[in-house]
Amino acid sequence: MATSPIEPPLTHDDVAAAAEALRGVVVRTPLLESRALNERAGGRLFFKAEPLQITGSFKFRGAYNHISRLDPDTRAAGVIAYSSGNHAQGVAAAAHYCNAPALIVMPEDAPAVKKQGTARWGAKIVTYDRYGEEPREAIAARLAAERNLAMVRPYDDRLIMAGQGTVGREIGEQLAALDLAPDRVLVPCGGGGLTAGVATAIKHYHPNAAVHTVEPRGFDDTARSLAQGQRQGNEADASSFCDALLAPEPGQLTLQVNQLLCAKGLVVSDEEVAVAMAAAFEHLKIVLEPGGAVGLAAALAGAVALDGITVIVLSGGNVDPALFASIL
Amino acid sequence: MATSPIEPPLTHDDVAAAAEALRGVVVRTPLLESRALNERAGGRLFFKAEPLQITGSFKFRGAYNHISRLDPDTRAAGVIAYSSGNHAQGVAAAAHYCNAPALIVMPEDAPAVKKQGTARWGAKIVTYDRYGEEPREAIAARLAAERNLAMVRPYDDRLIMAGQGTVGREIGEQLAALDLAPDRVLVPCGGGGLTAGVATAIKHYHPNAAVHTVEPRGFDDTARSLAQGQRQGNEADASSFCDALLAPEPGQLTLQVNQLLCAKGLVVSDEEVAVAMAAAFEHLKIVLEPGGAVGLAAALAGAVALDGITVIVLSGGNVDPALFASIL
Repeated sequence: MATSPIEPPLTHDDVAAAAEALRGVVVRTPLLESRALNERAGGRLFFKAEPLQITGSFKFRGAYNHISRLDPDTRAAGVIAYSSGNHAQGVAAAAHYCNAPALIVMPEDAPAVKKQGTARWGAKIVTYDRYGEEPREAIAARLAAERNLAMVRPYDDRLIMAGQGTVGREIGEQLAALDLAPDRVLVPCGGGGLTAGVATAIKHYHPNAAVHTVEPRGFDDTARSLAQGQRQGNEADASSFCDALLAPEPGQLTLQVNQLLCAKGLVVSDEEVAVAMAAAFEHLKIVLEPGGAVGLAAALAGAVALDGITVIVLSGGNVDPALFASIL
Repeated sequence: MATSPIEPPLTHDDVAAAAEALRGVVVRTPLLESRALNERAGGRLFFKAEPLQITGSFKFRGAYNHISRLDPDTRAAGVIAYSSGNHAQGVAAAAHYCNAPALIVMPEDAPAVKKQGTARWGAKIVTYDRYGEEPREAIAARLAAERNLAMVRPYDDRLIMAGQGTVGREIGEQLAALDLAPDRVLVPCGGGGLTAGVATAIKHYHPNAAVHTVEPRGFDDTARSLAQGQRQGNEADASSFCDALLAPEPGQLTLQVNQLLCAKGLVVSDEEVAVAMAAAFEHLKIVLEPGGAVGLAAALAGAVALDGITVIVLSGGNVDPALFASIL
């Protein structure tokens, strides 16, 4: 690998501290199992059900870990975030719990369910054109400076990665209660924050478990970056209905962590994702958004061996009903 | 009330013993909460998510409690059950875990997802005409005698009621962990076994909590039986898409328990149920079948006051995808 820092930008102590900060606030989501899916896989599959998290995705974890640790004056002045939807809702909810005003920069074409979910927590929303000239980071940075707001980045941030890592910590604890150890963990990957956190926690408990990123075709920047040992971006004209996973390239910190800890990145098609969403409906009774289903999609499509014990992170369930109905 | 037995046909000790029998086998389903649904209700709502139970409904609990306690010879000879679907799957799965052969008598028009879910556990299925001459109980009794199989009744059985009661016991424990007490509990009601068990457990922890049955319009036999103090049946030509709740009349034992413990029975329309299924999709990310959604339907339709703390049992999620899609 290209980098070999003395200390990685995220440690298990960070994740443990996040778990402490989140105690009593976060939902400890269940680890589900399905006989039918086990039979199909030829191994044991466990599903970490983050659609049942506050705001319907894992994003609340990182956002709360970050915002709750801001100094009181900064928190009172308010926070700002840019997001296609799930980070928006996570920041809005975390800000609500921390009594911080929140301003969210969202693309105009974000799913309605994600815009509503953000507004519900009292956050203000500013929309932008996803295909416009000014990148969303720049818009948010400008507004942050103008209005004296603290930026809550979606993934490239130690506290955010640590908060998302509590997903992996809970997986470790829940498997330990069953006296089981995972052979591999499949994690949906956009900017790489969830993967970095989960990998850090999982490797702490189970150094031999393989952690695989899973990305939609056309947005496999992390898979290619891991394979090539340096940061790769996506084609500007790529498209996928996995709206939660459309980051243009890996984060710097997240990639540094993931290079150290992750096995081969997996890639799935939108068709495979749709099959996975229907399978989760039938066998797990859980609503998955496209980006939340990529791990199951990789498993069902045979993208990785499934002997032994595989944990699949189902990262979110914020999907418009019309799209979900069309998939069923 | 018409009856006033010295000892009710179900006690909290029965439920506690069932919880012991089910330990390590049953899924301890989560108690979910949604800010959006709380706002709509004007009170705090908690949802006991039995779609996440083995077989996708609460029915596994009672079936396992019954079958695991049969004497070994009886168990080895096999069990038989009649069911429109959820009890069928519950018995099939429990028999699988107990190494007992299972024969299930199902209506020809049971949802495909429920027939598949039953066959998956290795049970044999015999179908019958729901509108035919011989009642399903008689068909099952005849087959039980011919083949020396032990009958596992769907609700009118002490061990079945006790097993379903573990839903209420978990609710009590989960609320206690939050330092909360329920003002009322809403329970989907077909034959009344789930209600009898849940009411027995809840009243043990919280004598002042009101337990309300919820039934689909046309199948409000328990509501009328509770109001009139004696067992009432439904009209033969009634129809509802809540296929899990179409029992013709309350059980004898279940009604005896429910008369002692339950408040007013609530009734909802199929339209109100469809609205509830869509709301659970949006806000809880849980798949509900029609019969599993009647409690939420009653809450959203304003059938009962929702001040304070209301627990709603979501009893199952085995619904055909085409029906679910049409509701979204």
